[in-house]
Amino acid sequence: MSAIVEKVLAGDIRTVARLISDIDDNMPEVRQTLKELYPHTGRAYIIGITGAPGVGKSTLVDQMLSHLRKQEKTVGIIAVDPTSPFSGGAILGDRIRMQRHSNDEGVFIRSFATRGHFGGLTRSTRSAIDVMDAMGKDYIIVETVGVGQDEVEIVKSAHTTVITVMPGMGDDIQALKAGILEVGDIFVINKSDREGVDKTFNDLRLMLELSQKRYVQGAWKPPVLKSEAIIDKGVAELLEEIENHGRYLMESDGGMHLRRRKDRAREELAEMVKSRLIQEVFGSLTESGEFEKAVESIVEGKTDPYTATDDLVLPKLDLLA
Amino acid sequence: MSAIVEKVLAGDIRTVARLISDIDDNMPEVRQTLKELYPHTGRAYIIGITGAPGVGKSTLVDQMLSHLRKQEKTVGIIAVDPTSPFSGGAILGDRIRMQRHSNDEGVFIRSFATRGHFGGLTRSTRSAIDVMDAMGKDYIIVETVGVGQDEVEIVKSAHTTVITVMPGMGDDIQALKAGILEVGDIFVINKSDREGVDKTFNDLRLMLELSQKRYVQGAWKPPVLKSEAIIDKGVAELLEEIENHGRYLMESDGGMHLRRRKDRAREELAEMVKSRLIQEVFGSLTESGEFEKAVESIVEGKTDPYTATDDLVLPKLDLLA
Repeated sequence: MSAIVEKVLAGDIRTVARLISDIDDNMPEVRQTLKELYPHTGRAYIIGITGAPGVGKSTLVDQMLSHLRKQEKTVGIIAVDPTSPFSGGAILGDRIRMQRHSNDEGVFIRSFATRGHFGGLTRSTRSAIDVMDAMGKDYIIVETVGVGQDEVEIVKSAHTTVITVMPGMGDDIQALKAGILEVGDIFVINKSDREGVDKTFNDLRLMLELSQKRYVQGAWKPPVLKSEAIIDKGVAELLEEIENHGRYLMESDGGMHLRRRKDRAREELAEMVKSRLIQEVFGSLTESGEFEKAVESIVEGKTDPYTATDDLVLPKLDLLA
Repeated sequence: MSAIVEKVLAGDIRTVARLISDIDDNMPEVRQTLKELYPHTGRAYIIGITGAPGVGKSTLVDQMLSHLRKQEKTVGIIAVDPTSPFSGGAILGDRIRMQRHSNDEGVFIRSFATRGHFGGLTRSTRSAIDVMDAMGKDYIIVETVGVGQDEVEIVKSAHTTVITVMPGMGDDIQALKAGILEVGDIFVINKSDREGVDKTFNDLRLMLELSQKRYVQGAWKPPVLKSEAIIDKGVAELLEEIENHGRYLMESDGGMHLRRRKDRAREELAEMVKSRLIQEVFGSLTESGEFEKAVESIVEGKTDPYTATDDLVLPKLDLLA
């Protein structure tokens, strides 16, 4: 066992922080470490929290953290913010939070902004979950901004997925797209002191009832909760429902739980394989200058992107054929 | 020139509809058609519109459409909805709209929901833009839900990017992430009859002023507009600003315009190359059953996803080395 792995398993914060940075930077050395850590994962309970910007996810997560810490549970938090691809906005929020919890050894917080061209955000997040799991955190909360494809992929890693909305967003049918309904295990209407909370509540309930999948016998019926995270209202109830859902997953006779594990493994592996392929093959095209030359040719009107793609990719595929 | 290309250039709606479906389904045959169409692109003005669910983007786009049609401009609309990965919610909205404009030959509307494992959403959208451009549409409006990475990639294809918000969203600093600010050429506060519009207006203005890039000499200063799309208020002003921005792009002495074209070509090519690599290589791993076998091994605890990735990808890379 390598020294790094030993230190991670012992919960050494500096080692974990450096390892997660290396994961984010896509350093090849981390792969061996992750392989060795993997057998030590599977113990943490993973909670995914998603929702549009401004609904108060961070406040909710902070309150959940306080509750869990009072129960002497250790917590890892991963904040994913793909809305901030340019300026690393996530990092700022990370620092603010870090300060607040900087003296608490039972908490580990890490943010990811969107990474460049290797599609590595989901990969980074998944590996960070594995690391926090191996370091012994009881709960890992993955908080993602927005409800795009990245977020859906990421929350698929969670045991329980919490969708956060706020009053008034239910006005528009777009806010309640079927895709969101289907990934949510628990729905929370935060800022529930605001006008329109009843309408949002009823809309959500109605849409969940109409969502056919929910009619499957013995299936989990996603509850709709109300919260005012800022004054800690509804947070204990949320944690209770998360526990209920966790119990449901364990008890639902094998099938559901196994399927979830298999789905998760499939998603994880697909993401890793694709990310690796792009990193290596696209990376070599970039490094060799072939890619930039093709860009120039397109701008100069000497070729089109479709032909250029063939010219770059087909020789590689011929080698693989 | 193939019969399909001729029909697209002649604006044949059935041919275009079928071609875009084939693009979305990632049929290999479309590549040759796209190659032949490419030299006929570059004439349309491409407008990207993004913003969180519920801000009223669709209504805004519909009103823009009416204005442009009154000016006898032809318009293509591409609605991209990655929040709906499971149930094709986008398709529903598409049909509703289609009905409304079904007798107008000057309008072509198409929706894309998120596509599966080949990361093809951006690719499909770009190719659909090319097709509508080649068929002779004066304007192409690309409407995307949300502000995730996918959306940012997609709006990079636009000449002018419009960010839509609504009052109250500015409450939370998260709603105004730097990433959004930097891709926006024009900001619209829709539903401007609602409470909090002045605060949102001032917040946006302040954040735009603080955004350093805006201080570059001669750079475009993104205007902040107010609209109530549902009663057609502010829509004409938005179209005027889009025209202003288009003029700015043309006049700003070469540099900016060329850089934008080059950035766009680079993004397009990167997306196509990556999507193609994943499609072919990941596709072959799936077809051969190797991928699913690896998933089973992970679930059975015989391997871990990191080792499985090596086992699947390294043989391919060895062949390429």
